[in-house]
Amino acid sequence: MRIDMNSDVGESFGSWTMGDDAAIFRSVSSANVACGFHAGDPSGIAQTCRDAVAAGVTVGAHVGYRDLAGFGRRFLNCTPTELADDVLYQIGALQALARAAGTDVRYVKPHGALYNTIVHHEEHAQAVVDAVKAFGGDLPLLLLPGSIALEKAERAGLRGVAEAFADRGYTPEGTLVSRRDPGAVLHDPAEVSARMVRLATEGVLTAVDGSDIRIEAASICVHGDTPGSVSMAASVRAALEDAGVEIVSFA
Amino acid sequence: MRIDMNSDVGESFGSWTMGDDAAIFRSVSSANVACGFHAGDPSGIAQTCRDAVAAGVTVGAHVGYRDLAGFGRRFLNCTPTELADDVLYQIGALQALARAAGTDVRYVKPHGALYNTIVHHEEHAQAVVDAVKAFGGDLPLLLLPGSIALEKAERAGLRGVAEAFADRGYTPEGTLVSRRDPGAVLHDPAEVSARMVRLATEGVLTAVDGSDIRIEAASICVHGDTPGSVSMAASVRAALEDAGVEIVSFA
Amino acid sequence: MRIDMNSDVGESFGSWTMGDDAAIFRSVSSANVACGFHAGDPSGIAQTCRDAVAAGVTVGAHVGYRDLAGFGRRFLNCTPTELADDVLYQIGALQALARAAGTDVRYVKPHGALYNTIVHHEEHAQAVVDAVKAFGGDLPLLLLPGSIALEKAERAGLRGVAEAFADRGYTPEGTLVSRRDPGAVLHDPAEVSARMVRLATEGVLTAVDGSDIRIEAASICVHGDTPGSVSMAASVRAALEDAGVEIVSFA
Amino acid sequence: MRIDMNSDVGESFGSWTMGDDAAIFRSVSSANVACGFHAGDPSGIAQTCRDAVAAGVTVGAHVGYRDLAGFGRRFLNCTPTELADDVLYQIGALQALARAAGTDVRYVKPHGALYNTIVHHEEHAQAVVDAVKAFGGDLPLLLLPGSIALEKAERAGLRGVAEAFADRGYTPEGTLVSRRDPGAVLHDPAEVSARMVRLATEGVLTAVDGSDIRIEAASICVHGDTPGSVSMAASVRAALEDAGVEIVSFA
Repeated sequence: MRIDMNSDVGESFGSWTMGDDAAIFRSVSSANVACGFHAGDPSGIAQTCRDAVAAGVTVGAHVGYRDLAGFGRRFLNCTPTELADDVLYQIGALQALARAAGTDVRYVKPHGALYNTIVHHEEHAQAVVDAVKAFGGDLPLLLLPGSIALEKAERAGLRGVAEAFADRGYTPEGTLVSRRDPGAVLHDPAEVSARMVRLATEGVLTAVDGSDIRIEAASICVHGDTPGSVSMAASVRAALEDAGVEIVSFA
Repeated sequence: MRIDMNSDVGESFGSWTMGDDAAIFRSVSSANVACGFHAGDPSGIAQTCRDAVAAGVTVGAHVGYRDLAGFGRRFLNCTPTELADDVLYQIGALQALARAAGTDVRYVKPHGALYNTIVHHEEHAQAVVDAVKAFGGDLPLLLLPGSIALEKAERAGLRGVAEAFADRGYTPEGTLVSRRDPGAVLHDPAEVSARMVRLATEGVLTAVDGSDIRIEAASICVHGDTPGSVSMAASVRAALEDAGVEIVSFA
Repeated sequence: MRIDMNSDVGESFGSWTMGDDAAIFRSVSSANVACGFHAGDPSGIAQTCRDAVAAGVTVGAHVGYRDLAGFGRRFLNCTPTELADDVLYQIGALQALARAAGTDVRYVKPHGALYNTIVHHEEHAQAVVDAVKAFGGDLPLLLLPGSIALEKAERAGLRGVAEAFADRGYTPEGTLVSRRDPGAVLHDPAEVSARMVRLATEGVLTAVDGSDIRIEAASICVHGDTPGSVSMAASVRAALEDAGVEIVSFA
Repeated sequence: MRIDMNSDVGESFGSWTMGDDAAIFRSVSSANVACGFHAGDPSGIAQTCRDAVAAGVTVGAHVGYRDLAGFGRRFLNCTPTELADDVLYQIGALQALARAAGTDVRYVKPHGALYNTIVHHEEHAQAVVDAVKAFGGDLPLLLLPGSIALEKAERAGLRGVAEAFADRGYTPEGTLVSRRDPGAVLHDPAEVSARMVRLATEGVLTAVDGSDIRIEAASICVHGDTPGSVSMAASVRAALEDAGVEIVSFA
């Protein structure tokens, strides 16, 4: 039994810090490294890559819309060509910094509004896939289960990897509970850890209505931007290891 | 007899265009492609790379300070670490777009204030060299004769390539005539062409005082940002070819 | 009989120029001055304000989404609060530069994607209106006829001013012919001028199907970004003056 | 007896937070509000202005070089015209947001590299003064004692206000101890508070060599970016009030 744990890192920018990358690197196997368009400056990204290498964590490109002021969390109606080239630019920039740190970009995960948009937006989903193909090496894409981008990735000969969210509630249909509804976010590390063990060992989660649902997920997304989230990630990892689950990057 | 001709391209940004890249590609053998920090957006850069490939022109990374509003023409007192990482980021970003166009970044030329600063600024010169080394592949650096960066490049095992400026006057000491002094800029295509033929065939230019000076230059820098400069570049190329000089990239 | 003529100006950025502001100032009575978020750097904006004052042209704030790379032509899904504050910031910045040039911001015209979005997007329309109210002085808003923002402006006690487009075809329903359909853009200065005279004197335009339609418009939008558009604007102005129509800003 | 206390606020940007503005507002009388060029986004700035109004704190414009990635801490060799227009743009933008919050910009304090540069850089010092004059209302400028900008401000008919740094050591000549030397930064709140009381009541500070020096300062600069700095500011304020010194903005 094995599963990946991933987290967003490298999201500081200039004098502004975000997240405790050093701490989260003790729990995860895959690092979604910001590439400069929604967060991350070159020196911060370079340091993050070196830290990932030191921690034995796999580096992925966390690509986003060109929107520093909005942290990539706002849909930007760029053309598919603009988006594909923006994504390719970001992967290439990160690759140079990663290689200088002794590793390579091994996967791509869209960030924020881009991640959510390509669940349903055909052209932006295709643009992300096109960029990954154009980069070469057929990197896998880390995505939401059900995302249109998963289909498009596979049609293009790329591996689409679905992830689960450690601290989120799920509907009986297997989608995330909306943040406006009760049960959207889980706060108890013990409960979250138990859920993730069951996911990793049985492929099953309990939905908000108490029913069991099957979730295909090769990776678990955890957060590192608050002390609470870092300790929850550590708790999930410890529980998985106690249950005999190996934490290994999918990439 | 052979020499390189280089020009700055890919300097449009979003809805703003600059230069006539298609026209200048008919004259040059090396293209200094903007990388997004002083000019160039990913889609424009991508198109420039495809055009360079179609024209058989070699792609180089035209790296600059992070200053879109100043077009990289203003000294920015960043730390050496920031500068090295900014340069590495830019080369990597261009490399991804270049490779998607069927080529690779084959050399690096610093732009604007960075080009001028590293003539004398030890730390910034070293930072640029460090970035090129970190990128790998030991790309040559295109620089001003006498630049401290030339020495540092060679000490680091990189090839430093000196260039001459087609439309600039030279002092008897072999430096550029200051733009504040008479004779700084030459406007007559016939005169400029004859000078460049002599440079390519004899390694000699006439200085402002009429004396002959030796100039080591493996490349001639021409401009493509005005109709006049494009036709001057064409005139230089035609004169060189008529004199039996082959125009080939140094890289 | 009187009507306003307006055009977008101040859209250069750093080393990139756009439009021939000096030329278009000979034709228009109102200048939509870029405020730095989609185009325009402070020194360019300052010069534009001085040129407007010298030409006796009224200054308005051409506010846009924060998107230099997209020239404000891409919808950006910011929150209403972000948008209102972004707009207020832009008006204030322009006001300081305008006042230093001896004038004041006298109206607000949303630009590009923002202009088109607030035709139908309730929250963004309200945010723009809120920003104009917050700025003080109850500046009029220049908008597309039928824009939801017109209603919201008037409900807030602001004057909403509708404009017509000199070089665009109209449907029998009074909306612009889509750029994908024939007749969307008119190129003949004589035809365009005759149409604008009829608009100014009778309030009537001929639609693409040949029918006459009533258009409420206190201003005519012309362009200054190509030599052809500048001469078309001059032609429209001359025709209007020949017909006894006075060209005066609505603001 | 009265003195001002000032601190930098509004330095968050988008999703990145910096400083605890709410906490520092309990100690200071003047708020140096970031204007968007080195830090601060419009909605964050707007909120900061409202918080300043609620706390009865005077708003000043904290203007900087256009360099978000460097937080305005890197010298940028812009032209005096560019700098003057950049500063004017920033003051105007803040003024619109301040007025919407029920107040006005009442002074200007250059930030970071700009603050330090205009201690000695004639052209940049003059450009800042020119911008403040151009804005109108003859706002006072908050500066380092001995700054060339102080002279230039006064020559232009503006009030130049010198400030002292609560947590910094001073040389016998009255300048700041270099951060590379011992005694540059003071960490003991009791010592710092006692020093500031003596400054406010006698105009005297003890230099690193133990000698007493006279310091002209109408304002004390404190920090709010760490929990320690916030409590040190509170301690300074309490000590001043205990000594009968009134904390009032100089502006």
